[in-house]
Amino acid sequence: MSEDSVGLAFVTVLGVLEQAYFSLQVIYARRKFSVSPPSTAGPPEFERVFRAQANCSEYFPIFIIVLWISGVFFSEGLSCLCGLLYLYARLQYFQGYSESAQGRLAPLYSSTRVLWLLIWFCGAGVVLSFCRVYLNLDLMHRLHTA
Amino acid sequence: MSEDSVGLAFVTVLGVLEQAYFSLQVIYARRKFSVSPPSTAGPPEFERVFRAQANCSEYFPIFIIVLWISGVFFSEGLSCLCGLLYLYARLQYFQGYSESAQGRLAPLYSSTRVLWLLIWFCGAGVVLSFCRVYLNLDLMHRLHTA
Amino acid sequence: MSEDSVGLAFVTVLGVLEQAYFSLQVIYARRKFSVSPPSTAGPPEFERVFRAQANCSEYFPIFIIVLWISGVFFSEGLSCLCGLLYLYARLQYFQGYSESAQGRLAPLYSSTRVLWLLIWFCGAGVVLSFCRVYLNLDLMHRLHTA
Ligand SMILES: N[C@@H](CCC(=O)N[C@@H](CS)C(=O)NCC(=O)O)C(=O)O
Ligand SMILES: N[C@@H](CCC(=O)N[C@@H](CS)C(=O)NCC(=O)O)C(=O)O
Ligand SMILES: N[C@@H](CCC(=O)N[C@@H](CS)C(=O)NCC(=O)O)C(=O)O
Repeated sequence: MSEDSVGLAFVTVLGVLEQAYFSLQVIYARRKFSVSPPSTAGPPEFERVFRAQANCSEYFPIFIIVLWISGVFFSEGLSCLCGLLYLYARLQYFQGYSESAQGRLAPLYSSTRVLWLLIWFCGAGVVLSFCRVYLNLDLMHRLHTA
Repeated sequence: MSEDSVGLAFVTVLGVLEQAYFSLQVIYARRKFSVSPPSTAGPPEFERVFRAQANCSEYFPIFIIVLWISGVFFSEGLSCLCGLLYLYARLQYFQGYSESAQGRLAPLYSSTRVLWLLIWFCGAGVVLSFCRVYLNLDLMHRLHTA
Repeated sequence: MSEDSVGLAFVTVLGVLEQAYFSLQVIYARRKFSVSPPSTAGPPEFERVFRAQANCSEYFPIFIIVLWISGVFFSEGLSCLCGLLYLYARLQYFQGYSESAQGRLAPLYSSTRVLWLLIWFCGAGVVLSFCRVYLNLDLMHRLHTA
């Protein structure tokens, strides 16, 4: 495994660093607006940062899962590319949401589009693998030699 | 890997689609009950949908982790079966919780039972692998030839 | 895979059990302080338990991801060791936070230190693999024979 998925691992580590950055921003916002744990309520400025990180954390496992399934079963290169785009869109989402609720929408849509693309790749990868393993039918190879 | 875990990948993609469905329901509920981000407080009808998705999201990574460990180290077929049952129970949980707090309980118990079963499979798989790798003892093979 | 990552699987299953324990504590706290779902607001005693579990759940996928990447691409033994330390620190975090907001800080710092160590291992593993796969350069082997 460690031989052929170094690209996926790289994007994953980048994603972890992004999540770490979001968490630090919440910690700074807690200090700035004096919102001490366990409270999570505060001025809208704080709540936007808090929810931006919560929303990104909620989607992070889903992103990593589809990144790897799409990368292992479909195409590592395409998955890594989508992965980088997703992480960039999420950075914009976080920054947009921190500024205004409205500001989260455009990057949310682009991040969702990339996520759906990865889900399609996963679906294609699962179907191709299924055909290869259970029906002994290599569709990819057929396509190439057709 | 992509050869022999296509079943696990299939259940995983199904789970991702289920999570996407739950997220969409929260977005619709936000519109219906006019709860604009970053707020998460609203009428109980909204809060039940919101919490149902939050609770499913919280358990989703745990579910995927035990699904794969149980599938790779113990039995892919049994894990996939449990996986499908779990996803079905979570769908019922979401729908039950959306209707009433009481309605979440029965499907919560069945989803938890399936999760514990998967955790037991993981434990068994880890013990079997440990014996095979470190003690050079193939318990499964012994059982079959006994 | 199931041959050489049984240690990582063991630590992972331990982590899942810890998360299950945290969830049960939230359920007990809900009963003790009469905080019925979908509500998440209650006396500070309840909110600390609730947030402790929420915080641990938020970091759990990140922990599992860096544990496995570090274990597969860098060193399984070191990753497992860090994994056990992390789970221990998180147990202390949960117990400390349940008692007082202040009590969460010391174990939070140790858990974060271990997490950063794992992230460094991931980085090193990715760089080493990259050199091996794309530059045909086995840095580890060079180091050993130097
Ligand atoms: N947990 C999310 C689930 C759905 C979702 O991803 N919503 C998007 C579009 S409304 C969002 O940006 N939510 C803001 C937030 O989570 O604070 C929510 O509460 O809204
Ligand atoms: N985060 C959960 C952790 C424990 C759990 O899974 N509780 C079950 C049984 S009380 C549940 O359905 N919780 C409802 C919820 O999370 O809104 C909680 O707040 O309750
Ligand atoms: N979701 C976290 C993100 C940042 C974080 O991990 N904060 C640490 C240090 S302030 C913590 O212990 N937070 C307490 C909590 O999450 O309730 C938060 O709301 O604070």
